[in-house]
Amino acid sequence: MKKIKIGAVGLGRLGRKHAENIAFRIPNAELAAVCSIVKEELDEVMKSWNIPHGYTDFNEMLKNKDLDAIAISSSSTEHCNHIIAALDAGFHVFSEKPLGVDIAECRRAEKAVEKHVDQVFFLGFMRRYDDSYAYAKRKIAEGAIGKPILIRCYGLDPVKSIKGAIAFAEKSGGIFLDLAIHDIDLARWYLGSEAKSIYAVGDCFTYEEFAKYQDIDNGAALIQFKNGAIGMFYAGRTCAHGYHIETEIVGTEGSLRIGTVPEKNLVTVFNDTGAVKECVGGFLERFEKAYLSEMQEFINCIIENRKPGVNVYDGTNATIIAYGCKESFENNRLIILD
Amino acid sequence: MKKIKIGAVGLGRLGRKHAENIAFRIPNAELAAVCSIVKEELDEVMKSWNIPHGYTDFNEMLKNKDLDAIAISSSSTEHCNHIIAALDAGFHVFSEKPLGVDIAECRRAEKAVEKHVDQVFFLGFMRRYDDSYAYAKRKIAEGAIGKPILIRCYGLDPVKSIKGAIAFAEKSGGIFLDLAIHDIDLARWYLGSEAKSIYAVGDCFTYEEFAKYQDIDNGAALIQFKNGAIGMFYAGRTCAHGYHIETEIVGTEGSLRIGTVPEKNLVTVFNDTGAVKECVGGFLERFEKAYLSEMQEFINCIIENRKPGVNVYDGTNATIIAYGCKESFENNRLIILD
Amino acid sequence: MKKIKIGAVGLGRLGRKHAENIAFRIPNAELAAVCSIVKEELDEVMKSWNIPHGYTDFNEMLKNKDLDAIAISSSSTEHCNHIIAALDAGFHVFSEKPLGVDIAECRRAEKAVEKHVDQVFFLGFMRRYDDSYAYAKRKIAEGAIGKPILIRCYGLDPVKSIKGAIAFAEKSGGIFLDLAIHDIDLARWYLGSEAKSIYAVGDCFTYEEFAKYQDIDNGAALIQFKNGAIGMFYAGRTCAHGYHIETEIVGTEGSLRIGTVPEKNLVTVFNDTGAVKECVGGFLERFEKAYLSEMQEFINCIIENRKPGVNVYDGTNATIIAYGCKESFENNRLIILD
Amino acid sequence: MKKIKIGAVGLGRLGRKHAENIAFRIPNAELAAVCSIVKEELDEVMKSWNIPHGYTDFNEMLKNKDLDAIAISSSSTEHCNHIIAALDAGFHVFSEKPLGVDIAECRRAEKAVEKHVDQVFFLGFMRRYDDSYAYAKRKIAEGAIGKPILIRCYGLDPVKSIKGAIAFAEKSGGIFLDLAIHDIDLARWYLGSEAKSIYAVGDCFTYEEFAKYQDIDNGAALIQFKNGAIGMFYAGRTCAHGYHIETEIVGTEGSLRIGTVPEKNLVTVFNDTGAVKECVGGFLERFEKAYLSEMQEFINCIIENRKPGVNVYDGTNATIIAYGCKESFENNRLIILD
Repeated sequence: MKKIKIGAVGLGRLGRKHAENIAFRIPNAELAAVCSIVKEELDEVMKSWNIPHGYTDFNEMLKNKDLDAIAISSSSTEHCNHIIAALDAGFHVFSEKPLGVDIAECRRAEKAVEKHVDQVFFLGFMRRYDDSYAYAKRKIAEGAIGKPILIRCYGLDPVKSIKGAIAFAEKSGGIFLDLAIHDIDLARWYLGSEAKSIYAVGDCFTYEEFAKYQDIDNGAALIQFKNGAIGMFYAGRTCAHGYHIETEIVGTEGSLRIGTVPEKNLVTVFNDTGAVKECVGGFLERFEKAYLSEMQEFINCIIENRKPGVNVYDGTNATIIAYGCKESFENNRLIILD
Repeated sequence: MKKIKIGAVGLGRLGRKHAENIAFRIPNAELAAVCSIVKEELDEVMKSWNIPHGYTDFNEMLKNKDLDAIAISSSSTEHCNHIIAALDAGFHVFSEKPLGVDIAECRRAEKAVEKHVDQVFFLGFMRRYDDSYAYAKRKIAEGAIGKPILIRCYGLDPVKSIKGAIAFAEKSGGIFLDLAIHDIDLARWYLGSEAKSIYAVGDCFTYEEFAKYQDIDNGAALIQFKNGAIGMFYAGRTCAHGYHIETEIVGTEGSLRIGTVPEKNLVTVFNDTGAVKECVGGFLERFEKAYLSEMQEFINCIIENRKPGVNVYDGTNATIIAYGCKESFENNRLIILD
Repeated sequence: MKKIKIGAVGLGRLGRKHAENIAFRIPNAELAAVCSIVKEELDEVMKSWNIPHGYTDFNEMLKNKDLDAIAISSSSTEHCNHIIAALDAGFHVFSEKPLGVDIAECRRAEKAVEKHVDQVFFLGFMRRYDDSYAYAKRKIAEGAIGKPILIRCYGLDPVKSIKGAIAFAEKSGGIFLDLAIHDIDLARWYLGSEAKSIYAVGDCFTYEEFAKYQDIDNGAALIQFKNGAIGMFYAGRTCAHGYHIETEIVGTEGSLRIGTVPEKNLVTVFNDTGAVKECVGGFLERFEKAYLSEMQEFINCIIENRKPGVNVYDGTNATIIAYGCKESFENNRLIILD
Repeated sequence: MKKIKIGAVGLGRLGRKHAENIAFRIPNAELAAVCSIVKEELDEVMKSWNIPHGYTDFNEMLKNKDLDAIAISSSSTEHCNHIIAALDAGFHVFSEKPLGVDIAECRRAEKAVEKHVDQVFFLGFMRRYDDSYAYAKRKIAEGAIGKPILIRCYGLDPVKSIKGAIAFAEKSGGIFLDLAIHDIDLARWYLGSEAKSIYAVGDCFTYEEFAKYQDIDNGAALIQFKNGAIGMFYAGRTCAHGYHIETEIVGTEGSLRIGTVPEKNLVTVFNDTGAVKECVGGFLERFEKAYLSEMQEFINCIIENRKPGVNVYDGTNATIIAYGCKESFENNRLIILD
């Protein structure tokens, strides 16, 4: 079996999960190199997993011509540069979202992708590879709900992770870019349309720490799309019951809901508080299989010389909308996109 | 509007609810008399509700020829005698279950009903008048699940009521007669068949107090009916989450479940324990509307000169099966009914 | 028992339900007169229910000084005039929503109520009297979810009623005044704050018939309240699965959802389509008990000389917000309320 | 990375899934040989997956000393012989359930395992490796429900598979051995006790074809365990809505339910039939991850020189109980186990 050799950059929580999937769960991939600016993390992974090549300098890794592809999970501010450098060095590229931290970066990434048309570029909007989201997409395509009228998206991080969110606030780009971007991608995917007008509101309801970065702990946006469809988005960082990702698509002839109760597993506990569904605790738990599936699809695209379903423009367009939300919220005004 | 004048005997928890429904919620009924051996209870009700006639002696109430009907919620050991006396005195009769505390009593009640064919006799199997149970009955009649194969019934009292259950244990007739009788009636109603063989087991899992009355705190029975259909019954007194009444009818082409999660209302609470449905606390809460509907139906049967859907033989036959469970459990043997 | 004598005006679907509740389900009320401009309807009700007085002219009914109170379910355009006339004639008044068809009418109604401080005025926001909504209110008051951050409201009429909605479109005031008004009242009630900014969108996704009245078949609004809390509202007329009323209040420490699946009853059907919860078909079915409870509360307020929890200003303020939605949608602009 | 080399026998539906997991999803395992009496199936797998060794004769495969372990998914009647031969040939052994088709076979298998104490023997009760079942086990161990009182198990095959079930009826051992065996294993596992008394009933409700093998299409058993706990088992072959595996453990202080609605994924569809959860279609879909996890655990046991949590006696004891059900049903009598 031919194995695609991958160099993975970034070994934080999600980066490590990607590396682990490449190393241990994808038969036709091999984790041939890892890169991290955190030396201890790098050494630990190389040793534990027996990885032959390790780098603290990304550009050094790009010189390793034994590699076929690069998987990027570095910090958001590095994504754009890493994408461009890796493409220019001739590699297939998988990158975590976001494509860039502003629209100019997204445009630069687009150019690099356009220049290297024979290389696979894959953007990690993993929800499209989640079984339930993919199933909903097929149902809609089959006409199960008629024509989409409205999409409602909840993207709520568990309050348990609030410390990390506060620490990360300065670099996060704000709640709409950080949390709502996945929902915005889903909205574009399910509705097949781009945003026309945006109004967003929010506040620091508990954690004033976000205020100094013009950020908030809970926010919402109402978006009308060019085809008339409506998007309702709610992003929050203080969810008491866990990681609540819920999406609903209302159509002219029916509706679909994904994840109404973000339950941990198939167990219901009946005790003196009632009938309890424990909820999923975080993104790695909820999307464990989707992260594996998207990486498998990236490898398959390389092997089969195919383009992925999600492309660089999806990254730019989602970012444009997320910026619209940010701008609307910051200035309390209605944003009309061209 | 003609009003049916009712004399109600028994003013305990359920008796009082029946009296209250008659007095305040049924337009064509009037609570014209009340009877209780507990003088204070009697006085309190008469005064609060302004009821003209009160009795501590049931036979005295039967002399009040201004009444049209008698509603019996006295203690189970009195039911049979009260039914017979009231019928013999010429009244229409509503009686709480059970018909009698043994089969001989049931037969005596049957005879009295047969002797007074022009009087309405109504046995309080209220679940048949619950919206959800009645809906399930109609769905089955319409063929929604094909031919019934199996019925599973849970009848679980909240552990909060355990003190009352222990105090009442001596007179209750045991868990199958006390709790499972409603489920047995439902099984006969939905399956349209009588029991053929019975095996029942159980134990005092927490409350040894039941042992001295040959009773248990949790028990189960497997019953095969004459038409081949199967009944699985679980009765318990220690339910942590509330009053759990759940019934499932599996058919050859589908299934129906009633009350899977015995939720209190339409509210779901999401908090740090997960997504919580609080559960219903007791029979008066769960069957509030059914108690009203059955009493309304009793009144309507009188006015319209109709026979109720549930008759005296339903009482006897459910009792025969409950006794079979009791006997099976007590002797750890299989009971084969003729 | 003293009975409050009521004259009911309007015998349409909801008017008839109110009249029926007064006549048959409320012990201390009496339906002493009915009024309808539809003669056949009037005659039919008088005859079937044996009502002594009937009128086709509302002002004639007000001359009947034997009455204690008036219950108004006439067409929306008559509400304001009927309220004022009935109050001026000295009666206690129950009125269906809306208070008026524009804000000027609401102000006129306010004045009449202020002039007659000793008469009970009750506005029919019946959801506040629904068991589940009232339970949620108590839970919030007890601190179950911390401080409210966001309310999400779905008010979706079944597509089965679309013909009626089209016929009524000219007079309905538009989707926000017609459907969302109940949700707006709930938002004000649960959040304890008034709207600060409003953006609303919508379209005729299926039924172009609404367009000629500047109306739509599905619309949504995002509202920020003065205390910072967020409201997301979705109103629709084309719900495939029934009457979908769902409300969620997200707080700083938990959330509450009411009616997530607007299920008909406690029955789940398992068949070859899966596990199916049939949904409630319309407002009379969903809020049957709430309509009874609010009317009972109106009567109790009269007897006990109390003011209802919902007052005339609730009617005005909800109308102001609904008009804001309408204006925002019609002009595609952000509305800032002073 | 050291890879355990496995020879897999049986390439039917489940055998092929096991082989696929070994070949493609377990990093430290290698599918080094396959064996099937069906030549085409063998050739197809060898070619598609590029497997170096293939056999139509199981004993020939055992001569391949390059292998470390054997995975048995042959027909039930071969399990016992294959287990013994593979152990005697010095291999670690994974075997699908059942251990044997009668108790004598189970005893022979036990002897072989006892003779080869240094070899891993793993019996494929995969549900113990399902996330939800394993989670329930941990919750019980933590005391979440107190002491178990009752276990209720549904094991219902989809009616869509009925043709296969009829074709297989002669060799299946009957519904209790074929379907209920997994539930019986779970009951023993959760309750920590063995059966004391058994009563089982059933019938051919639709498919008379099962009758000629003394088999049925739906059956149920009530079992009391030696510690007093109660087991209610329902096995069926005619489930309209899919593959319904549901397990409930009721304890003295709470209950746990696993799989109440055997939903396919996180999607709810709202359409004109109501709110619909589509159900899982079959065992490979429901237990996809558990089949992978158990095989991974088998490999890990070999590498780490550990004994699996499920042993050969679990196989025998579950079989004894399943035979008790069969005997009780066939003779309509109560079975008392010593």
